[in-house]
Amino acid sequence: MMARRIRVIGIGAGNPEHLTIEAVNALNTCDVFFIPVKGEEKTFLAGLREEICARFIKGKQPRLIHFDIPARRQDGAYAGAVKDWHEAIAAIYERLLSEETGADETAGLLVWGDPMLYDSTIRIIEHVRARGHVAFEYDVIPGISSLQVLCARHRIPLNRIGEPVQITTGRRLAEGWPQGVNDAAIMLDGIQAYETVADPDAEIFWGAYLGTSMETVLSGRLGDIAPDISRVRAAARAEHGWIMDTYLIRRKAGPEDGEAQP
Amino acid sequence: MMARRIRVIGIGAGNPEHLTIEAVNALNTCDVFFIPVKGEEKTFLAGLREEICARFIKGKQPRLIHFDIPARRQDGAYAGAVKDWHEAIAAIYERLLSEETGADETAGLLVWGDPMLYDSTIRIIEHVRARGHVAFEYDVIPGISSLQVLCARHRIPLNRIGEPVQITTGRRLAEGWPQGVNDAAIMLDGIQAYETVADPDAEIFWGAYLGTSMETVLSGRLGDIAPDISRVRAAARAEHGWIMDTYLIRRKAGPEDGEAQP
Repeated sequence: MMARRIRVIGIGAGNPEHLTIEAVNALNTCDVFFIPVKGEEKTFLAGLREEICARFIKGKQPRLIHFDIPARRQDGAYAGAVKDWHEAIAAIYERLLSEETGADETAGLLVWGDPMLYDSTIRIIEHVRARGHVAFEYDVIPGISSLQVLCARHRIPLNRIGEPVQITTGRRLAEGWPQGVNDAAIMLDGIQAYETVADPDAEIFWGAYLGTSMETVLSGRLGDIAPDISRVRAAARAEHGWIMDTYLIRRKAGPEDGEAQP
Repeated sequence: MMARRIRVIGIGAGNPEHLTIEAVNALNTCDVFFIPVKGEEKTFLAGLREEICARFIKGKQPRLIHFDIPARRQDGAYAGAVKDWHEAIAAIYERLLSEETGADETAGLLVWGDPMLYDSTIRIIEHVRARGHVAFEYDVIPGISSLQVLCARHRIPLNRIGEPVQITTGRRLAEGWPQGVNDAAIMLDGIQAYETVADPDAEIFWGAYLGTSMETVLSGRLGDIAPDISRVRAAARAEHGWIMDTYLIRRKAGPEDGEAQP
């Protein structure tokens, strides 16, 4: 039975060597790739995706279909704007599937990092399925996320022994330190939310452009290093035109935490 | 200058194809591997590590040094017992480094999953360094964790749009639902802590032996599926003599969460 197929392939955080063998094998099953382009960041990422295809695909020439990511509405409710944006991208995927992908072909979507972590490709594919105009199967291949590269570069575990860790956004962190944890990993921070953490004795492990040739990492006591991070971050953003950074903040465990745990 | 080197290499959650190109390249720089063995689980993992070495190492024959992991004290304070256990393993690593590793050689430690997530290899290496008897450098190569395979198999994102997620242990979950989140990923659960979550309408996405040939996944409304998971889990544990499972629980977002976020 003929069926279109989508493979959502995590390609790691920038270094092509972060690809897994599974991801390389998946790349080689694809007939067509949908490559988003928009702005300096997306252009960099598109270039990286093309480099990955050129390096790891052997013996066939899949088609690379570039498409413009629509702009997200910046007014109104965040969740509503995101939902509308996903619907708009779903309409594009639907068109690319029906018009650019043969009825027995496989389309690849190359996802920066891991499709499970602050990425909406899976949600958008479910939107395409819900629209009901084109039938397809799909699977998901995990990839190394920037958070994992952050921890590897700093040579730290994400969690302390037996302790929880919260993964959250800069927007959330700026609203207050998360309840019930002393360790928080922050992704999608466009607002330097670490500056709002009123605990100068906390430790921060920060990294930008992790996995790429532009990679920069800093760590130290939050009260000491936060201004340095902000300065390095602003300079890097000015130089490259975009920035993608992530960090872990560890607060000192209270007497009820960690060592005293029964 | 001659220096011993340790490479902490994340090898993914069981499927040898989860290895990254970076990990394969790192394997090929190692002269010796330290392979822990203990019990049925460790024997399975040791076999997997040997399979990975045999499959991906080309043109050299590194030495595989097996060692017994000491037992962890089960009485007394958890954190104290873990610290003593890490010190005991550090003493073994120190001996293996000084006696089994040449002064200009590289030793590889193959870590199940990702060294950043509920794994103590990095901590133990820091203990070896603190003991101060043998000098070495080390680096860390990230790997695909079972949590990533869980999400890939269920084709779900770990987080909901703009929402935080907490990664925690079964022990912690059994003490109560984590504050401030509706999404919790559980690792190291030896006590079926999902049975203690008093929210039958929550969704659970469960998986055992993720990435291996024994992989089993289940998902559904917690109130409906929890007994099935416990039954499947008990049968699998009886069959294989050990189990390693992980899961994500998603509670319905309250009116203050998600959709209403400004």
